[in-house]
Amino acid sequence: MSEDDFFIFKSPNRNRLFIGNGVANMQIIEESLDQMLKQVAIRTNKVANRAEVEKSVRDIIANVAQNGDQAVKDYEKKFDRVELDDLAVSQSEIDDAYDKTDQDVIDALELAKRNITSFHKMEIEDSFVDAKQKGVIRGEKIAPLAAVGVYVPGGTAAYPSSILMNVIPAKIAGVKRVVMVTPPQTNGLNKAVLAAAKIAGVDEIYTVGGAQAIASLAYGTETIPRVDKITGPGNAYVATAKKQVFGQVDIDMIAGPSEIGVIAGSQAVASQVAADLLSQAEHDKLARPILVTDDKQLAINVNAEMNRQVKLLPRQEIAQAAMDNEGFIAVVKNIDDAFTLMNAVAPEHLEVQLPDAISYLNQIQNAGSVFLGFSASEPVGDYVAGPNHILPTGGTARFFSPLGVQDFVKRTQFVSYTRPALKKEADAITTLARVEGLEAHARAIESRFK
Amino acid sequence: MSEDDFFIFKSPNRNRLFIGNGVANMQIIEESLDQMLKQVAIRTNKVANRAEVEKSVRDIIANVAQNGDQAVKDYEKKFDRVELDDLAVSQSEIDDAYDKTDQDVIDALELAKRNITSFHKMEIEDSFVDAKQKGVIRGEKIAPLAAVGVYVPGGTAAYPSSILMNVIPAKIAGVKRVVMVTPPQTNGLNKAVLAAAKIAGVDEIYTVGGAQAIASLAYGTETIPRVDKITGPGNAYVATAKKQVFGQVDIDMIAGPSEIGVIAGSQAVASQVAADLLSQAEHDKLARPILVTDDKQLAINVNAEMNRQVKLLPRQEIAQAAMDNEGFIAVVKNIDDAFTLMNAVAPEHLEVQLPDAISYLNQIQNAGSVFLGFSASEPVGDYVAGPNHILPTGGTARFFSPLGVQDFVKRTQFVSYTRPALKKEADAITTLARVEGLEAHARAIESRFK
Repeated sequence: MSEDDFFIFKSPNRNRLFIGNGVANMQIIEESLDQMLKQVAIRTNKVANRAEVEKSVRDIIANVAQNGDQAVKDYEKKFDRVELDDLAVSQSEIDDAYDKTDQDVIDALELAKRNITSFHKMEIEDSFVDAKQKGVIRGEKIAPLAAVGVYVPGGTAAYPSSILMNVIPAKIAGVKRVVMVTPPQTNGLNKAVLAAAKIAGVDEIYTVGGAQAIASLAYGTETIPRVDKITGPGNAYVATAKKQVFGQVDIDMIAGPSEIGVIAGSQAVASQVAADLLSQAEHDKLARPILVTDDKQLAINVNAEMNRQVKLLPRQEIAQAAMDNEGFIAVVKNIDDAFTLMNAVAPEHLEVQLPDAISYLNQIQNAGSVFLGFSASEPVGDYVAGPNHILPTGGTARFFSPLGVQDFVKRTQFVSYTRPALKKEADAITTLARVEGLEAHARAIESRFK
Repeated sequence: MSEDDFFIFKSPNRNRLFIGNGVANMQIIEESLDQMLKQVAIRTNKVANRAEVEKSVRDIIANVAQNGDQAVKDYEKKFDRVELDDLAVSQSEIDDAYDKTDQDVIDALELAKRNITSFHKMEIEDSFVDAKQKGVIRGEKIAPLAAVGVYVPGGTAAYPSSILMNVIPAKIAGVKRVVMVTPPQTNGLNKAVLAAAKIAGVDEIYTVGGAQAIASLAYGTETIPRVDKITGPGNAYVATAKKQVFGQVDIDMIAGPSEIGVIAGSQAVASQVAADLLSQAEHDKLARPILVTDDKQLAINVNAEMNRQVKLLPRQEIAQAAMDNEGFIAVVKNIDDAFTLMNAVAPEHLEVQLPDAISYLNQIQNAGSVFLGFSASEPVGDYVAGPNHILPTGGTARFFSPLGVQDFVKRTQFVSYTRPALKKEADAITTLARVEGLEAHARAIESRFK
């Protein structure tokens, strides 16, 4: 296979970093590190332009906030073609789905639950109190949010595992009311999804999807409670609605297509690297499988393996589109450059297929979830390892974190001062208040010493 | 003073909870708790409608993202009427401002810095690692964001204290590059602001304000670096821009007008309660001073005191508008009801002016920062106590937290599996992958055991 099989590296528009050759190959790139970094920077600097989606979503939110259940039912009829009498899913429907779910699926979900629970318990933060200064008590109290809404997409993207990942951290944080929303399906809800909801400890389920689901959770309807935070991925309407209600409620993050970055050296096995890259490519035509390696032969072998394996997949069409349009293989001079490039990409998932992989932990600055070593295949984290699989995408691992217990609590600060302790600091307070032109601030302190 | 002096409790529109009598009195309300809770719920359930601001902001962001410095300079000329050659503030200008700042101001800022530092160090979170399962290592690494942008409003709202509150937690988290932006002033930047920036450890300062400042920090220009997170309050344009760039960068929260809630019993001193309420009323015509008490006489006395004290304030007009249009005094049956009502309000600041105030900490569900006892006057927290004064407003204390060290870090999860450890969980993984229709996920695991 010669290099002529691949397009050269180019970036004809700001939204697409690497353009493939249209025959389901990963593009192999050998450019200077600087060139590659420049292109990655362009790729992660997008100005979103969704004016039309934004307008529709704004209308949906206003309508649901004003008209509640009736607006929700109208939208469900229009968008999901389902006429709903009752938005709530009954406990007997949930129990029935659980009973009809295969025992090996229940067992696997229970194993996942145990590992997710043991991992996320390590994330619990403690309140603190400090009484070192005479007459002064200061502290921070950590408390759970009262109610949380979890969005679960419909159709093929309704993943039981994602319900565990959303709900278990909320329950560990102490959230009393976890409300799940999911679009109604003409032939009934996915049984494994309902079983997972039961296992995870969801408190209420409503069949509503899209922007109308997000609006319901943000403002409340006669049936659906207003919550404090909305989590979970969804389509462009869901993502836009979450952004619009942000501030009215909290949200987790703005989710985009899946990504996997693999850093691999010559000791990696091409068929395994290829299989791991395909595991994310099959999610979405816009998913992004990326390999960075210092071994040109590995690059060629992985590409050939992907080409072979993708043809055997049920979701071949999706995976091929992702490989061809979004994926790439970068050949770099050395492993240090591989980490530099990958930190600029800031992938959702990062595999480090190198000997002594854990020793590279310090070199990883930006990644959602990291898989160390040749056996830590990414799907282990999707299901049973215990870390969360709701992760920052699209380069946002620069600043967003995996979903965790920390997302389901709020902090409240407190101070207590005795009169003598306040007296000691009164001059500093009144000085600063007056520099800022805030006389009433100064007088509030002085009112104690008249 | 008879009750006829006050308007009755009503809510003629959804955006205003209590309408005053137009003569700078706080309205005193005695209704059933249920009635009051209902009105508070309406007040906190707002559908934002800022279509015009959103449109202008969208255009500004797109222009700055495309044209960088030149677009920024054009906007500064248009909006702030300042022609800028250089957007950067020089170190000598900063040093000069520091040297010209009064020593008592420097001393007060240094005292504040010490207390803010000692408080926020208690917020530092630890990475963790877990190796309890044979062949499995799991953990979470906490690392600072690389670069943060701090927005500092111009004019009278340029508060040196807010710079300490924004920057010190970022520096404790380990952020290397803290970039401050503030609108240019025709007669030069506020010296105390520059002195505070030096004391807090700001790394770079640029004179740019409004939506163009937020766009610069989100996308970067030739001069201003792209950052990972933007913090700090601003006007409607700044708040809207922050919301629009959310996802391209992280933001702290959507800030609204200041609020103070005071829960006071018969032992509180009316003149002190009044002074504390006015300390927040002077911030903004939309600021919201709220007293909830079980003592009708205290309600009447506090109102009379506010009426007297407000006339002596330099910012009388602002404070009166806040009292008259946004403030209220609710008289409740008992202190339990006071906490129930205040939890529904979820105020930015909450004073508990009751004996043994700290014992009520458990009853406080929603509040940004709490001031316990008769001497913990709110301004102590604005300046020197140490907890942050950048706090959730407008009822968002239900889910947002005070700014803290936690805002300036990101978490990265990691797992490592040996081949035998993966083998043990392989069946569970492939079972769940296939239930979800994700065959390539299953094959990635199976590729290790061929």
